[in-house]
Amino acid sequence: MDFFFYVGSLYSYLSVMRIDDAAAEAGVEVRWRPFSVRNIMIEQENLPTANPAKIAYMHRDVVRRAERLGIPIKADMPHPVDPEQLANRVAIVAAGQGWCPQFTKAIFANWMQRHDRPGDLDQLKALLTELGQDAEAVIAEAESDKARQAYDAETDAARKLSIFGAPSFVVGNELFWGDDRLDDALAWAQAN
Amino acid sequence: MDFFFYVGSLYSYLSVMRIDDAAAEAGVEVRWRPFSVRNIMIEQENLPTANPAKIAYMHRDVVRRAERLGIPIKADMPHPVDPEQLANRVAIVAAGQGWCPQFTKAIFANWMQRHDRPGDLDQLKALLTELGQDAEAVIAEAESDKARQAYDAETDAARKLSIFGAPSFVVGNELFWGDDRLDDALAWAQAN
Repeated sequence: MDFFFYVGSLYSYLSVMRIDDAAAEAGVEVRWRPFSVRNIMIEQENLPTANPAKIAYMHRDVVRRAERLGIPIKADMPHPVDPEQLANRVAIVAAGQGWCPQFTKAIFANWMQRHDRPGDLDQLKALLTELGQDAEAVIAEAESDKARQAYDAETDAARKLSIFGAPSFVVGNELFWGDDRLDDALAWAQAN
Repeated sequence: MDFFFYVGSLYSYLSVMRIDDAAAEAGVEVRWRPFSVRNIMIEQENLPTANPAKIAYMHRDVVRRAERLGIPIKADMPHPVDPEQLANRVAIVAAGQGWCPQFTKAIFANWMQRHDRPGDLDQLKALLTELGQDAEAVIAEAESDKARQAYDAETDAARKLSIFGAPSFVVGNELFWGDDRLDDALAWAQAN
């Protein structure tokens, strides 16, 4: 199963924190794929920025869902964050090197539990160092054309799968959108 | 618990068909409130009409969810329907007379299972007659200023509760959006 997420999507947090256990229980393998849902939503004029009622709801709902799922969270998360999408490009580098889940969980946890902004250079370096990475080298690679192209390629792959939001789960040609479809997607993967 | 729905919202179908059983099991009383989510979404520039990927997804997802929930459905439902929102005004009349759930389930079932368009006058009359109502009298009342004002008042109540989509569930000040939040809303109603 492909797991498309975006460091910057509030609802992606819930899936990031629970997908490993849920997938293991279902016996389903997961590929973590960071992509720019932001660019896609801008193209589709689908950003909720003009809709204060919906934004307020999303914040409240994510907190309520996290509490229901037993996932730590602190309300009033900063959002939107990381206009350069640097944290997502680091996630792309991490995916190429096999430590994407580890990095993604850590940066989301810092964002949603401590209100550290993804993309903030100081916290990014500290976090990479904690994960045993060469922080300067990783960030240099995340800023390279190669990482930018790889990120664009993943976004393009998402576009071709008709993905319009994050998180999304893809099993064959079947698309599931939203953390609240994680269980449906895993059941689909098991049955097909 | 207040149940805000719209005859014309694909996802409202799922809640319409299962809310009575789910609420009875939870011991929660439900008030059925038809309102114009369409007018609210137009005001908020939140109609997905410009987003073919999202529309295609919604159709597929509703069918998949219905199958998972054991609710009959036939794919390729006509949508959007009933530009005059006549079926919703009939639902308002029905709410005033105590037969709103009965009418709403019947019109949604015809729409989603047989592809009858809500608002089509012939099927509306047949359905009202089947329900033991005086079809001509009910439709005349649904076209009256009184029914239009009552419908606008319910839409206004929804607006004041910060509702931006359908179905929505409200318990006190707590808003839940989407059929996939029905269980959360009922659990909230039980606990609070």
